[in-house]
Amino acid sequence: MAGHSVIFDTAESPVEVPTGTLLTEAAQLANVALGQPCGGQGRCGRCAIIVRAGSVRRRSTLRLSAEDIAAGYALACQAVVEGDVQISIPPQEKIERRLTTDRIAAEVHVPAGYDPARHQSVARVALTLSPPSMDDQTDDWSRLQTALRQQAGIDNLTASLPALGAISNSLRAGQWQVSAVIDLDPPVPRLIGLFPMHAPSDTPLWGIAIDIGTTTVSLWLANLISGEVRSQVAEYNGQITRGEDVISRIIYASKNQGAAEMQGLILETINSLVEVACQRARITPDMIVKATVVGNSTMIHLLLGLPAESIRLAPFVTTVNQVPHLTASATGIGIHPEATVECLPGVASYVGADITAGVLSSGLDDTEDITLFIDIGTNGEIVLGNREWLLTCACSAGPAFEGAGVRDGMRATQGAIEEIWINGDTWEPTIRVIGGGKPRGLCGSGLIALLAEMFLTGVIDKGGHLNIGLPTPRIRTRDHTLEYVVAWADETANGRDITITSVDIDNLLRAKAAIYAGFGVLAESAGLALDAVARVLVGGAFGKYINVEKAVEIGLLPDMPWECFEFLGNTAIKGAYLALLDRFARDRIRAIANRLTYIELSADNRFYEAFTSALFLPHTDLSRFPTVQAALTP
Amino acid sequence: MAGHSVIFDTAESPVEVPTGTLLTEAAQLANVALGQPCGGQGRCGRCAIIVRAGSVRRRSTLRLSAEDIAAGYALACQAVVEGDVQISIPPQEKIERRLTTDRIAAEVHVPAGYDPARHQSVARVALTLSPPSMDDQTDDWSRLQTALRQQAGIDNLTASLPALGAISNSLRAGQWQVSAVIDLDPPVPRLIGLFPMHAPSDTPLWGIAIDIGTTTVSLWLANLISGEVRSQVAEYNGQITRGEDVISRIIYASKNQGAAEMQGLILETINSLVEVACQRARITPDMIVKATVVGNSTMIHLLLGLPAESIRLAPFVTTVNQVPHLTASATGIGIHPEATVECLPGVASYVGADITAGVLSSGLDDTEDITLFIDIGTNGEIVLGNREWLLTCACSAGPAFEGAGVRDGMRATQGAIEEIWINGDTWEPTIRVIGGGKPRGLCGSGLIALLAEMFLTGVIDKGGHLNIGLPTPRIRTRDHTLEYVVAWADETANGRDITITSVDIDNLLRAKAAIYAGFGVLAESAGLALDAVARVLVGGAFGKYINVEKAVEIGLLPDMPWECFEFLGNTAIKGAYLALLDRFARDRIRAIANRLTYIELSADNRFYEAFTSALFLPHTDLSRFPTVQAALTP
Repeated sequence: MAGHSVIFDTAESPVEVPTGTLLTEAAQLANVALGQPCGGQGRCGRCAIIVRAGSVRRRSTLRLSAEDIAAGYALACQAVVEGDVQISIPPQEKIERRLTTDRIAAEVHVPAGYDPARHQSVARVALTLSPPSMDDQTDDWSRLQTALRQQAGIDNLTASLPALGAISNSLRAGQWQVSAVIDLDPPVPRLIGLFPMHAPSDTPLWGIAIDIGTTTVSLWLANLISGEVRSQVAEYNGQITRGEDVISRIIYASKNQGAAEMQGLILETINSLVEVACQRARITPDMIVKATVVGNSTMIHLLLGLPAESIRLAPFVTTVNQVPHLTASATGIGIHPEATVECLPGVASYVGADITAGVLSSGLDDTEDITLFIDIGTNGEIVLGNREWLLTCACSAGPAFEGAGVRDGMRATQGAIEEIWINGDTWEPTIRVIGGGKPRGLCGSGLIALLAEMFLTGVIDKGGHLNIGLPTPRIRTRDHTLEYVVAWADETANGRDITITSVDIDNLLRAKAAIYAGFGVLAESAGLALDAVARVLVGGAFGKYINVEKAVEIGLLPDMPWECFEFLGNTAIKGAYLALLDRFARDRIRAIANRLTYIELSADNRFYEAFTSALFLPHTDLSRFPTVQAALTP
Repeated sequence: MAGHSVIFDTAESPVEVPTGTLLTEAAQLANVALGQPCGGQGRCGRCAIIVRAGSVRRRSTLRLSAEDIAAGYALACQAVVEGDVQISIPPQEKIERRLTTDRIAAEVHVPAGYDPARHQSVARVALTLSPPSMDDQTDDWSRLQTALRQQAGIDNLTASLPALGAISNSLRAGQWQVSAVIDLDPPVPRLIGLFPMHAPSDTPLWGIAIDIGTTTVSLWLANLISGEVRSQVAEYNGQITRGEDVISRIIYASKNQGAAEMQGLILETINSLVEVACQRARITPDMIVKATVVGNSTMIHLLLGLPAESIRLAPFVTTVNQVPHLTASATGIGIHPEATVECLPGVASYVGADITAGVLSSGLDDTEDITLFIDIGTNGEIVLGNREWLLTCACSAGPAFEGAGVRDGMRATQGAIEEIWINGDTWEPTIRVIGGGKPRGLCGSGLIALLAEMFLTGVIDKGGHLNIGLPTPRIRTRDHTLEYVVAWADETANGRDITITSVDIDNLLRAKAAIYAGFGVLAESAGLALDAVARVLVGGAFGKYINVEKAVEIGLLPDMPWECFEFLGNTAIKGAYLALLDRFARDRIRAIANRLTYIELSADNRFYEAFTSALFLPHTDLSRFPTVQAALTP
């Protein structure tokens, strides 16, 4: 079969591919990163490229206007090479990979009374061994074990082959004065490393907490001796270009070498974060001897290279919720190869370790009051309960509130519209943009505000339908779709109108309805009225920036007094940090995982009813939202 | 620096090397195997090659006669390239790598009463799991653990990441009917593999026992269910070309990438044996789920890539005598990656697992009679004791009895002179050659016979000196060295005289004296007279072919009635096989390792005295050898 030359304007050199190759495949070959949030299914339009010369066969033109096609646009995931072509990548679509540290740095307090000797599962022990002699030819390993037993009361030590292989040199380099770093966790103590010196007892010992979000990966570097967090870093999850939600990623991972590629991408992200965190703390990665990892179940499976397909298909089971302890070398995380890597326990396919860790850091499992915990991310996970019982469910909210699945949606970075007000007489909007400057799109908090404002000003009705009767040019039809123009082309960074379409509105309604319905089903399962809930805790980095009032106005959050809400930021990484420091906190997360009763919504008729009722603004039953009712009453 | 072309007549293509390159380095580059029994120190002469064109600089001509040099001979390990050269490899020196199965196949009986359910540490359990459903979304790993607890009473199962990653597919492929293979050893049961079927309980489960000898590696493939040995294979240790004794190998391993190379060579040998054994049994290597490994401490260290340097240097300590359990993937042994690999425990730098396993299989640790166990290999290890006490020592006998360190020595294969008789009037020898045909050299049993015959016929005196006064052309001086001609050039396979030199005799005397002196020191340490010993057990593949009478005549073995001797063959692999089958046998080897009191001879003045006294034929004190004394009395 004949080969065709494909030239990407951003690639170093052309690539040769056979007839029938997808442009996304050619791009991969040419080392050109193309976003595929929908997993290459032609749904999201994020992989749009421009054909400059030659022609391609378009399998699908979904998400492209006739105008787009005339201008040469094609979806790379749907375009088949049939001859030599030259491809140009639209600049605004180039993959962003930048640190989002500014928005994630959180204030952290070392837990009161933290005592590494009591709480830490990794110990550093200073040992003085008697050197071997012709009268004492004990082997190095037995000599070390004996010293450890006699000087630290640690028995039954084990070690991997590489750890064992390093002891001889360390013992001699330290002239029989060494510091042993040992993982004390059951079933038997394990040697992590032997260092040729007597370290003073306040010398730092390093650990990391990692939260693998579907969108953002966060990492905290902590001194296990003092408990202090020395650096907090975050970066987009490198898998984003292979699918924006967990379902797209599972599909991608199940094709060809997809699983290995996904594993490689997340390891790349984690290891670059490790590098940055270490540079800031002026240490080297091999000084890190422990890691705790949280994330939703899909993220953990993809990190570990475990098959994730069954998470996607009924009856939705994971390979493993409670992963046995691993070492860094087994996982590929670039820290000390013998470092303990503990993936904290999840509960179900869609309630992962990010939620169990979040429950711990929120303290929900130890409250007297009945408390609702909502983590609004790519999925909306909900926990309801107190110190006596805990229910949980996942709402398949979809990524709408993270800016995906929405035409002009984007993540909460520079250029995102994060707040909106609409004039009730002119229907003209006023916007606030992250970082100031011209807007590029709408992020989650902006979408919530927009929806609320449109509803309250009559731009949309309670069913979410755009009111075409209003005398404003902002409500219009384009490509057979109704939409509201948030910003005109001449006001935006990319010279295109920023709009919200009726399809976008529908997606947002479904997302908020899913979360609210999940809350309702949990309350019903517990035999409670909704107003039995005394407190609402909102987790997730995104949650931190929500305007509560507007979230209540659209019916995303229940209608309760402001003081009942608490915004906790990234509860997942806080929980991972607490488990990193404290084995009792870690055990408590295990207890939470075992205590959490998971309600599968996809099998629950009550959910469908509650969901349908919630597909209105704020809800079919307006009496549930008295403050909104009051606002609507003239 | 200019490159020079080096052409080996046995290589596929020339190699380019810079000035100053050793021919051994060039040979390695050209993939030409050259023997270096002395480790490249110019001592052994085994790497002799012929320079056909061009010239090399000879750093050392030790072991080469003026005649040799005139003929173009050079030692590859001492010859430096200074221009283009053409090298020819003398055919008789080409490295042999052939199976020696004929000589190693041993008769094996499955231990009486062997019951895998009771004795075997690896279990195969048939499990029937209930499939997941919307009402039971338990993850695969918990589901497996629960089934194992309920159906087999096995709790606290753990698994490596790769084993965990494979369970989902196995569970579904087997439609929730699976066979779990589990290592039951403490501290917690470990999943080796999950197979998608219910195997009938008599389906074989495979294991291997490996004995890594300095010279020969032996491997037995056994069915862990029936206990039956299905194939026995052996091959030369691939490390031989890098040094014939353990000291040379440690030196080689300590240079540059030597350790990795040594590890690679022994793994190559083991893995090719695994292949052959599997082919014979019509199975594949990944069906092997367990391995036990024995060998001297140096071999175990080199296999595992552990630093071995301290074994060679006073105070002679190993990195580890009791290696923690490993997996095949951690060691590089090419069987099921999760297979348990158990390196059986050694006692000291020069008393390894081959000896503890040998003691087990000889039954010495459970005898009432005081028993002497001698393993004559590259080192001579000795154990003295009974069920109440056990003493051991290593004698640094050197490889003389294995045919190395002797000018015309060779291993016990085709063409080796294995038995000799000398006419006491004519001093003419009669020889027996392994495989018939013309002789190529002298193997261990041949050397013992030769030494005994020369002594008894007066060719040498009790000090080992050749009697130049005898009227025979067979005693002569060549290259300033006295020697006795065993076979003339026209009778031999390679057209050269086969001789034994005064240097060879000296080496043999030292070897036998070391072993006998070790025996004496052990007896003295136990406060016993030598004749308190009731039985002598001789282990080692080599030991099987010794002529006891002649071994007594030279003073290698003590002068005792024939019926007191027992020749056990390769006791090391027998012990490894018993430990492979039976966890109680394995525990007994551990007990033996702990019970054995090691006497360090290099620090013992008694040894030097005993050694010096034993440097005579059969001994300074002839009264210790009454039958020899009688034979010498006219």
